[in-house]
Amino acid sequence: MARVYNFSAGPAVLPEEVLQEAADEMMDYRGCGLSVMEMSHRSKTFDDIINTAKQDLKDLMNIPDDYEILFVQGGASQQFAAVPMNLMRNRVADYIVTGQWAKKAYQEGQIYGDAYKIASSEDKTFSYIPDCSDLPIHDNADYVYICENNTIYGTKFWKLPNTKGKILVSDMSSCFLSQPVDVTNYGLIIAGAQKNIGPAGVVVVIIRKDLIRDDVLPCTPTMLKYKTHADNNSLYNTPPAYGIYICGKVFKWLKDMGGLTVMQERNEKKAKLLYDYLDKSKMFRGTVVKEDRSIMNVPFVTDSDELNKKFIAEAAQNGLVQLSGHRTVGGMRASIYNAMPYAGVEKLVKFMSDFEKENA
Amino acid sequence: MARVYNFSAGPAVLPEEVLQEAADEMMDYRGCGLSVMEMSHRSKTFDDIINTAKQDLKDLMNIPDDYEILFVQGGASQQFAAVPMNLMRNRVADYIVTGQWAKKAYQEGQIYGDAYKIASSEDKTFSYIPDCSDLPIHDNADYVYICENNTIYGTKFWKLPNTKGKILVSDMSSCFLSQPVDVTNYGLIIAGAQKNIGPAGVVVVIIRKDLIRDDVLPCTPTMLKYKTHADNNSLYNTPPAYGIYICGKVFKWLKDMGGLTVMQERNEKKAKLLYDYLDKSKMFRGTVVKEDRSIMNVPFVTDSDELNKKFIAEAAQNGLVQLSGHRTVGGMRASIYNAMPYAGVEKLVKFMSDFEKENA
Repeated sequence: MARVYNFSAGPAVLPEEVLQEAADEMMDYRGCGLSVMEMSHRSKTFDDIINTAKQDLKDLMNIPDDYEILFVQGGASQQFAAVPMNLMRNRVADYIVTGQWAKKAYQEGQIYGDAYKIASSEDKTFSYIPDCSDLPIHDNADYVYICENNTIYGTKFWKLPNTKGKILVSDMSSCFLSQPVDVTNYGLIIAGAQKNIGPAGVVVVIIRKDLIRDDVLPCTPTMLKYKTHADNNSLYNTPPAYGIYICGKVFKWLKDMGGLTVMQERNEKKAKLLYDYLDKSKMFRGTVVKEDRSIMNVPFVTDSDELNKKFIAEAAQNGLVQLSGHRTVGGMRASIYNAMPYAGVEKLVKFMSDFEKENA
Repeated sequence: MARVYNFSAGPAVLPEEVLQEAADEMMDYRGCGLSVMEMSHRSKTFDDIINTAKQDLKDLMNIPDDYEILFVQGGASQQFAAVPMNLMRNRVADYIVTGQWAKKAYQEGQIYGDAYKIASSEDKTFSYIPDCSDLPIHDNADYVYICENNTIYGTKFWKLPNTKGKILVSDMSSCFLSQPVDVTNYGLIIAGAQKNIGPAGVVVVIIRKDLIRDDVLPCTPTMLKYKTHADNNSLYNTPPAYGIYICGKVFKWLKDMGGLTVMQERNEKKAKLLYDYLDKSKMFRGTVVKEDRSIMNVPFVTDSDELNKKFIAEAAQNGLVQLSGHRTVGGMRASIYNAMPYAGVEKLVKFMSDFEKENA
């Protein structure tokens, strides 16, 4: 087995220890004689799996008791509808559009009410985070929506917007668990698993309990009501059980690593190595304004499409894979989530440096 | 490793060969150096996985070209909303209520229009399938809905209802791929994976292409529109990639077994062994009228709750697990899906027979 360094933006690299455990337990989960994939979600064993996962996430993020953790399906894309369906009581919401995913959320919001774009960075290809200290928040806005880390463009909100008292909803998919956050700043956090948590097909929702209500928009499917899942410990119907099991293993791994403060240090160190190289390179350059750089997704380019292609192909031959930029923007992108070891970024930077010399 | 015989109704037993292959490929999918869980859904490798899965399913079920296969999320429960949202043009639909899942679908349908219960077997605890040869189908009904195999109660439609020309929508979750079907009888088939296909978190939708339309109900989330998924080969957003990969392996396994005609023979033989025993037992009895018996889910009881409990506990000690009836009905239930070998049913019947002698 020759594992590669996998820079995919998602589905993305998972900790080797987690995968190895999953492989070892595939035929027989801890003496049960069956796989977690084959296990009733109403069994005591699965109850332990989901409850342990919830508790470990609660510990990791220091989630207060007045917040509920849900495991749901459909990706963040489905949450783009669930958020307004559950929260848009006045049918008004403010969106800060800092990339394709925020834009999609904003467009979906328009199906359900008056969704306003109160700030955007589209004028410069989403290469920065707009000043959000004094935005025209609507008096009757039900929430302010952000995508906190923009996977495609490589920007991150390092300072949360001033919502002027309104509920903050954050799509945290690609920075979830990468550093400590103060959960009390948010009304609702959504995170697709396939970046920093586990396999695609699970979304973690962290919601302040007073926002879990029965009076959702009239056409809301039962499965899109947060209350449905909150009332049933995410077991209203069969959950994506195997995915939750893997997420639970990742939470345990993060605890073993020392928790989110340690992860932040590691992530900052990895990002610094790559950004420092980009800043001094004559061939490669980052595409994002420095102060808004993500430490999870690092897009970069050369001045030539041909050279970009050559780089991606040769990198892959050297065990550095999935370095293509998003299909809508081109260039390169290195996603360096929690599970990417420092050695992977070292090898990437070394390869970039060699490539630069050879192709100067 | 001591594998047990697992009679869970879902998530349910999977073929050992499939699980073993998945375990072997966990750290390194066929020389890629990464797990399918870590792989971009936009990669060539994953494209092969999803397209092969689709083609194999098409081959197995002999699905005509004017039908589309979709892999979506949210379970059948989410389809209870998606079906009316996509198909209820006249806001009228007829439901045949033969169990809890059909009832839930019917109730969800009422959110979106006039959903009528045109037949039901609730009067006798859903222990039979009503006569559906001449039902009061509404002239403007957009579809007629059935749950074709009732997992909880153990009944099956052995003859499809006369829909008088209306579109038939079938929740086939617990009998999917258990025998050949004529897909052209249906407008729409839905099947949650966690019974006969793969891990929970994937739903297979087979839809006649003319029913995939843009003019869905106005409040339909983008993710619940069949067109969204049909237009993007089920890759509009990140799909439940690992689940689809396992489903694909099960499709391959079914082809290797000889296809659905062979599976039907095997399934009938397994079911006959168990039903024959139930019919002659003085202690155990089936709960369903003979002509409507499912060959996938076999509920049975003794006359004593205490004895039921004792049976379930002792069976588990003997490696025959997850034999409890659904939490809403009690008693026992043996789910004997495709992946349950004949030897498992033999062992169960032998154990029942011994138990009956010892506890006579």
